[in-house]
Amino acid sequence: MTQQELTHQIKKKKSFLCIGLDVDLTKIPPYLLEFEDPIFEFNKQIIDATHHLTVAYKPNTAFYEAYGIKGWSSLEKTINYLNENHPDIFTIADAKRGDIGNTSTMYAKAFFEDLNFDSVTVAPYMGSDSVEPFLAFEEKFTILLALTSNKGGLDFQGLKVNENELYKEVLKKALTWKNNQNLMFVVGATKAEYFKGIRKIVPNHFFLVPGVGAQGGNLQDVCKYGLTKNVGLLINSSRGIIYAGKDENFATKAKEQAFDLQQQMEVILSSL
Amino acid sequence: MTQQELTHQIKKKKSFLCIGLDVDLTKIPPYLLEFEDPIFEFNKQIIDATHHLTVAYKPNTAFYEAYGIKGWSSLEKTINYLNENHPDIFTIADAKRGDIGNTSTMYAKAFFEDLNFDSVTVAPYMGSDSVEPFLAFEEKFTILLALTSNKGGLDFQGLKVNENELYKEVLKKALTWKNNQNLMFVVGATKAEYFKGIRKIVPNHFFLVPGVGAQGGNLQDVCKYGLTKNVGLLINSSRGIIYAGKDENFATKAKEQAFDLQQQMEVILSSL
Repeated sequence: MTQQELTHQIKKKKSFLCIGLDVDLTKIPPYLLEFEDPIFEFNKQIIDATHHLTVAYKPNTAFYEAYGIKGWSSLEKTINYLNENHPDIFTIADAKRGDIGNTSTMYAKAFFEDLNFDSVTVAPYMGSDSVEPFLAFEEKFTILLALTSNKGGLDFQGLKVNENELYKEVLKKALTWKNNQNLMFVVGATKAEYFKGIRKIVPNHFFLVPGVGAQGGNLQDVCKYGLTKNVGLLINSSRGIIYAGKDENFATKAKEQAFDLQQQMEVILSSL
Repeated sequence: MTQQELTHQIKKKKSFLCIGLDVDLTKIPPYLLEFEDPIFEFNKQIIDATHHLTVAYKPNTAFYEAYGIKGWSSLEKTINYLNENHPDIFTIADAKRGDIGNTSTMYAKAFFEDLNFDSVTVAPYMGSDSVEPFLAFEEKFTILLALTSNKGGLDFQGLKVNENELYKEVLKKALTWKNNQNLMFVVGATKAEYFKGIRKIVPNHFFLVPGVGAQGGNLQDVCKYGLTKNVGLLINSSRGIIYAGKDENFATKAKEQAFDLQQQMEVILSSL
């Protein structure tokens, strides 16, 4: 999927929502545990109920790896279900990978070729040659961690280097890398006031924005400084949507939460 | 495994070698492709031939994920084979993970509980609460990336913050984290002259040292500044050992390369 196609989907659906599929077997409705593959069944019902309200889904690989081969199989079924039934939806493997060059190439193959995700999240600590193997894939996106939404996010990202914070150096440096047009960036919603400075460095690239909802970020604040003329934002919500209901009604409850966010987004988009 | 037990194994085997099991199907002897699980067969033969010369094995997860469920199954078989037949050997999941707190807990469960590795490599970019969930596991080690051996390693790790390079800030900060006694650090061999300054900050923790061999690092240089009274070093070699032979003789060739390194290590240890 190209950036133009993603923007087209956003305008068509009046939504720039991304739903995080972080399935924890201790949190899903207990009746699902009777199914052969509870994780996939949960995801399938969430997808069936919300696909018209969202432009992206983002499984976090940790929640699948924790269940070993079974978990990896659930991840594979989930991405296949999305690609077969909703090829217009942007898919994100939230994997936060990154390694030396030849090893990053193996990760890129895992997520872009074997699983056929549209994008993967990548950590910047190991530098250019740990990220460029991902960027080499055409029509695939590498979503680089810049400013994360967690409590310890600023431990290192907020350190001053060259009179700027480290996350700004990461953004600047990344824009010099080969195929940087295939980059997006993770920028946490819990630090909405930072978006103004960040957009000065990266005026056009898409941002994946976690932290709205359970982590306390505010949608309007993020959009005030983060929106571009091509929208440029994917707002992720995971727990706030998928765990809104506790029993057989979970998919309906998830749809209600997604609809609420989509409605807010429709208002914001109408003013663009 | 405790740090004391690891040091005991090192002294017993007169080796602080770690062998990287980075299995690429395009590089292994072609006859292995006839086996039901070529990756596991390759690993099994390498392990059978080298286990008396090494104190640790380190599969890099990228090389397994690239083959999807089959690859994850090969990884599971490999770690099970090691735990059943060589419980005295230290096992490292080279995964370079790290995410927000509840997600890092899922990764920790994946590698420490589901797969039962002794340790996992973790990236520091997301800060304290992305690493502490790993550190919470007793008798398990979290091997934090500090200074990596790749070309782009210094892109960010080498940036000056507070008059020190970022990797030194990572080391200092990590020593303030809860359960920091469960930390080890990745320090690349290609920058051996940096070990002196690093040991001033971290005098006692173990370092996992990649970059000897294929990447050009020198064993003697690393030991000159990196060794502690409890040894404190695990020297990794991957490609230099496992791909030393190209056909049916690959395990014998791997043993010869491992023996050569072990012999050098025996000389170094005798002078401690």
